Amino acid sequence: MPVLVMKFGGTSVATLDRIRRAAKRVSVEVAKGYDVIVIVSAMSGKTNELVGWVTEISPMYDAREYDAVVSSGENITAGLMALTLQEMEIPARSWQGWQVPVLTNSAHSSARIEEIPSVNIAAKFAEGMRVAVVSGFQGVSPEKRITTLGRGGSDTTAVAFAAALKAERCDIYTDVDGVYTTDPRVSPKARKLEKIAYEEMLELASLGAKVLQTRSVELAMRFNVPLRVLSSFEEPNDQAGTLVCAEEDIMESNVVAGVAFSRDEAKMTLVSVADRPGIAATIFTGLSEAGVNVDMIVQNIAEEGRTDMTWSCPTDQVTRAEKAMSDAKDSGVINYHELIADKDVAKVSVVGIGMRSHTGVAAKMFRVLSAEGINIRVITTSEIKISVLIDRKYVELAVQALHDSFDLDKTS
Amino acid sequence: MPVLVMKFGGTSVATLDRIRRAAKRVSVEVAKGYDVIVIVSAMSGKTNELVGWVTEISPMYDAREYDAVVSSGENITAGLMALTLQEMEIPARSWQGWQVPVLTNSAHSSARIEEIPSVNIAAKFAEGMRVAVVSGFQGVSPEKRITTLGRGGSDTTAVAFAAALKAERCDIYTDVDGVYTTDPRVSPKARKLEKIAYEEMLELASLGAKVLQTRSVELAMRFNVPLRVLSSFEEPNDQAGTLVCAEEDIMESNVVAGVAFSRDEAKMTLVSVADRPGIAATIFTGLSEAGVNVDMIVQNIAEEGRTDMTWSCPTDQVTRAEKAMSDAKDSGVINYHELIADKDVAKVSVVGIGMRSHTGVAAKMFRVLSAEGINIRVITTSEIKISVLIDRKYVELAVQALHDSFDLDKTS
Repeated sequence: MPVLVMKFGGTSVATLDRIRRAAKRVSVEVAKGYDVIVIVSAMSGKTNELVGWVTEISPMYDAREYDAVVSSGENITAGLMALTLQEMEIPARSWQGWQVPVLTNSAHSSARIEEIPSVNIAAKFAEGMRVAVVSGFQGVSPEKRITTLGRGGSDTTAVAFAAALKAERCDIYTDVDGVYTTDPRVSPKARKLEKIAYEEMLELASLGAKVLQTRSVELAMRFNVPLRVLSSFEEPNDQAGTLVCAEEDIMESNVVAGVAFSRDEAKMTLVSVADRPGIAATIFTGLSEAGVNVDMIVQNIAEEGRTDMTWSCPTDQVTRAEKAMSDAKDSGVINYHELIADKDVAKVSVVGIGMRSHTGVAAKMFRVLSAEGINIRVITTSEIKISVLIDRKYVELAVQALHDSFDLDKTS
Repeated sequence: MPVLVMKFGGTSVATLDRIRRAAKRVSVEVAKGYDVIVIVSAMSGKTNELVGWVTEISPMYDAREYDAVVSSGENITAGLMALTLQEMEIPARSWQGWQVPVLTNSAHSSARIEEIPSVNIAAKFAEGMRVAVVSGFQGVSPEKRITTLGRGGSDTTAVAFAAALKAERCDIYTDVDGVYTTDPRVSPKARKLEKIAYEEMLELASLGAKVLQTRSVELAMRFNVPLRVLSSFEEPNDQAGTLVCAEEDIMESNVVAGVAFSRDEAKMTLVSVADRPGIAATIFTGLSEAGVNVDMIVQNIAEEGRTDMTWSCPTDQVTRAEKAMSDAKDSGVINYHELIADKDVAKVSVVGIGMRSHTGVAAKMFRVLSAEGINIRVITTSEIKISVLIDRKYVELAVQALHDSFDLDKTS
């Protein structure tokens, strides 16, 4: 029988009533003839409670114990979901990560799935089991200790199972009804996308649209798993949600698929750095080792033999970056006049695979922002994305203007 | 290094503060040079919450899913305890049942431990780990599914680990400070016992003294594991609690060690049963299959070819017993005039290994009750115990009178 993966996030299983509602959705797919793998998150709030206990006891906790504690929330939901399905006379059982097993590396709290042997679950499907309920977010290391995949990891679990069991599709049930051209709270003209390409979703996901974990989209692209994002609070139908799929499965699309933004950005400039070969490597290795996630980078020649280096990073990492640079200066590794941090910036990006074949998107974007009197601080581009750093107070204005100019409220 | 097992019940790990307090006790034993195995229960209230969810979803739940859900409480405590010990700079890690592994049979929700291979934990002790924190109450079946051992199962886990790792002693930390000659709420003269023999503790445990799970005492007796029951809410010292040990390790003891009682008893009489060989087997097989836990049994000859059969069972099983008997009558398996149930009875017992070498204990017990005007309904005896069924309203009177007459407030 064809296999379908259905993933339910924390809000979709927050209470016994919601678990029952999710189970009803599962029963509809079982009735259509699918063998279903249900991936569950912890009931919403549970993981935060467990994380709170761990960090209260041990702020610099052993990640192996952290994983052992926080993974328990998903196991509770898995058992309750299996029982609910059994009450509906659907043959179902729960599987914890180590039982499948979901084999991961040993990077506790941010482990990567290495393999999901399909043999155990496939054998149960062959015996007549119709639903395998699997704890999301967790796996087991080569040392047989419990690992977790990082926040949002249940999405990745779902896609990995879809790949391992060659599922027809992976449905991600969440509390939003799909992927939008931009955040509807910022632009009331935001439109739900029927389809979006993996590459576009990847850019949107990593740019702050919190619908899907980035790794899950990477994995779906690699194994060509169609991914549907839909709400568990709406009546289901075949057109519901947004399908994340291969570019070739999208007949027509706008040049620009969406406008993403992130308010949580800071711009930092190292002024008048003594320039020499390898200086960029020295600076960014230092920042990386200090745990600073550098996003955009721009280098300007200031004067003979000296350069200005500018980068962006999350606001809450500014202090860490400052310490790393002053430490490097003190130890003589780098030499610079001053480090300027501007915490009042934001990043706005336009994303679309259509850019590959259309020129002039960047020029149009700059024109639109200029017409609104918005100054651009830093620019970066990729094949399907243009991002700019602007003053934070202009975010809403920029998003709305770009959304309008690229006709994102209209289908192509 | 010598091994010590320390078990902490739900009230002893109910909050992060109490977990810290328990960890301090562990640190004292580590400082003495012990390698310690800590067995933890779920934080008090947790297991009840999980059981509540399971039974709300599925009153006739699949015991395999029940076990998967309710076992998670212990795993949370185990991780938190390991983190707390690590914060105290003690090398510690948590082990879930399947990781050890604690191998059980497949009788879900009341599984029996079949084997605990000591190799994994012993190897970690050899590497310098000082504390292994193990989730109590759980194990793993031959089918690699999670099992639980039944309520109070963590005591059994503790004793099984003490046997498997040849521990010097097994300390059970609970919310009472030891085993008493009787319930202090009934007799203010009740005295804490310094030592008690396994056989006596077994009789007291199964007679309603809820300090230890019966199976844990059986196991301790079989493997000769000294068991100490003590409070986690008192300052520890070498004299704390009660030591449950072999008879030969107790130099002197009273003839009677304690007076136990159970108010939750009913007396049932099947009047004028047609007697024939095998009739007792037929009746009690029927009751057993209906899930009735029969305790005392008395048979009287009523008239030629007919007999009265009397037994006692827990009050809440009376309806079940009545149905089993009327079904058996309807199907012609047995024939009787009527079934009388008396729910207003209670059981009082005196227990002591000294009875083996002292005659006259039974006679004295009957004399004491008679002097108080208490009528005895049913009597049963074993080598070290005499139990009587009396009207429930006399329980306190009987317990106090027996406690006084056998001088239980005085040490021998």
